Amino acid sequence: MKIDKSQVSLRPTERLDDLLTHDLHIIQSDEVFSFSMDAVLLARFAGIPAKGRVLDLCTGNGVIPMLLTTRTAAAIEGIEIQPRLADMARRSVELNGLNDRVLIREGDLRELHKETGHGVYDAITVNPPYMPLNGSDIKLNPHQAIARHEISCTLEEVIQTCFRLVKPGGKVSMVHKPQRLADIISLMRQHRLEPKRIRFVHPRAHLEANMVLVEAMREGKPEVRLLPPLIVYNENNSYCPEILDIYYGAKEGKE
Amino acid sequence: MKIDKSQVSLRPTERLDDLLTHDLHIIQSDEVFSFSMDAVLLARFAGIPAKGRVLDLCTGNGVIPMLLTTRTAAAIEGIEIQPRLADMARRSVELNGLNDRVLIREGDLRELHKETGHGVYDAITVNPPYMPLNGSDIKLNPHQAIARHEISCTLEEVIQTCFRLVKPGGKVSMVHKPQRLADIISLMRQHRLEPKRIRFVHPRAHLEANMVLVEAMREGKPEVRLLPPLIVYNENNSYCPEILDIYYGAKEGKE
Repeated sequence: MKIDKSQVSLRPTERLDDLLTHDLHIIQSDEVFSFSMDAVLLARFAGIPAKGRVLDLCTGNGVIPMLLTTRTAAAIEGIEIQPRLADMARRSVELNGLNDRVLIREGDLRELHKETGHGVYDAITVNPPYMPLNGSDIKLNPHQAIARHEISCTLEEVIQTCFRLVKPGGKVSMVHKPQRLADIISLMRQHRLEPKRIRFVHPRAHLEANMVLVEAMREGKPEVRLLPPLIVYNENNSYCPEILDIYYGAKEGKE
Repeated sequence: MKIDKSQVSLRPTERLDDLLTHDLHIIQSDEVFSFSMDAVLLARFAGIPAKGRVLDLCTGNGVIPMLLTTRTAAAIEGIEIQPRLADMARRSVELNGLNDRVLIREGDLRELHKETGHGVYDAITVNPPYMPLNGSDIKLNPHQAIARHEISCTLEEVIQTCFRLVKPGGKVSMVHKPQRLADIISLMRQHRLEPKRIRFVHPRAHLEANMVLVEAMREGKPEVRLLPPLIVYNENNSYCPEILDIYYGAKEGKE
């Protein structure tokens, strides 16, 4: 849908960014929330059914639900605990004309099952806060702190929520820091989510991974595939072809 | 040490192979046991102290203990449950003049603590049987079957043994199939071995991993580094420089 940018009303510090695919646009603010590459990679990596019901936890400004509309006809929901971010997400959904495809809920993911019931989603995605609360000084404003640190939910609560809300055999996809890999895998196992596909993202071919993408299946059989490494930059400091394809490829409807 | 090959007595089907580094040679037999690239990669990857006491579990024909002699002055032991393989390993140690550096034990790793006591090794390496016993037809001779399938020990028994025998703060390094990653990580966690370094080996840059190297620390702090992917073949079907370096580099004393 073509956006009439003059009709979009932005709040202070907000800007309208182009999602670079399907003419989607998104409201962002560096002081409140802007998405990063991890959200884009997760939206492409996640196993998503062609229809059914999909949920994005910790949805922030709704970037993942909006990108997922390009991959599936499923009903997509996002839940965000911060009213300021949920409001941004709703306005972005609205301005892209996606009100009939995407529902943004404002609330605490730990309580969502009380509203939806258990085992109701075909797939769940989540880009959770990466940093544990370990007493380190958090030098961020409250919006950024909640998005990045395990203030409003811990990794275990996120994983427990995924198990509770996804159908048996349904998929849960997460992006996180590789440093937490042992936590992620052992917590998923404890909550009967079996890792099935893992992909590491390396800034360059000779550097350590700085992101990990994990897809698990509720009550899946224990055996995991380790996908080829995803390298971001080549030797000439430009994006590798696969990254360009992930960012722009969907424009041509490629999967 | 220069080997006088005419002085080496081989049993039927055995051959003498060059380990390509430090003039080391090894007795092999395709019908009994020949090492693969995984052993060479583990011998190079493993965190090994400059001195102290090092143990290799499931040592087979002793390839890892012999390669480790090029990296450390530690006293190195290997344990192998199959008498035929332990005998091959001992003769290889002998012919390389390494009797004062390497001790090959014949026995069951699950019982070793009764002889050595608990928490006595500074580092442990293990290239265990990869395949679980899941009722699949095992079309191998008994020697090969025990080396490849979890007949004489399960993954959990191997990991439990590592915990029992390594010192607190000591390192345990394993090579295995990536399909088992979730098993490896969750079992290590259960047995208080914390994964600290992980490296995936991909046959080619665009293919899934077919080996994983994991280094854990007994009672280590939870945080793991995901090393750059190790790619075996380049686009011209030749070994990548790092593989050549791992195989031949030690010749020049490089680490």
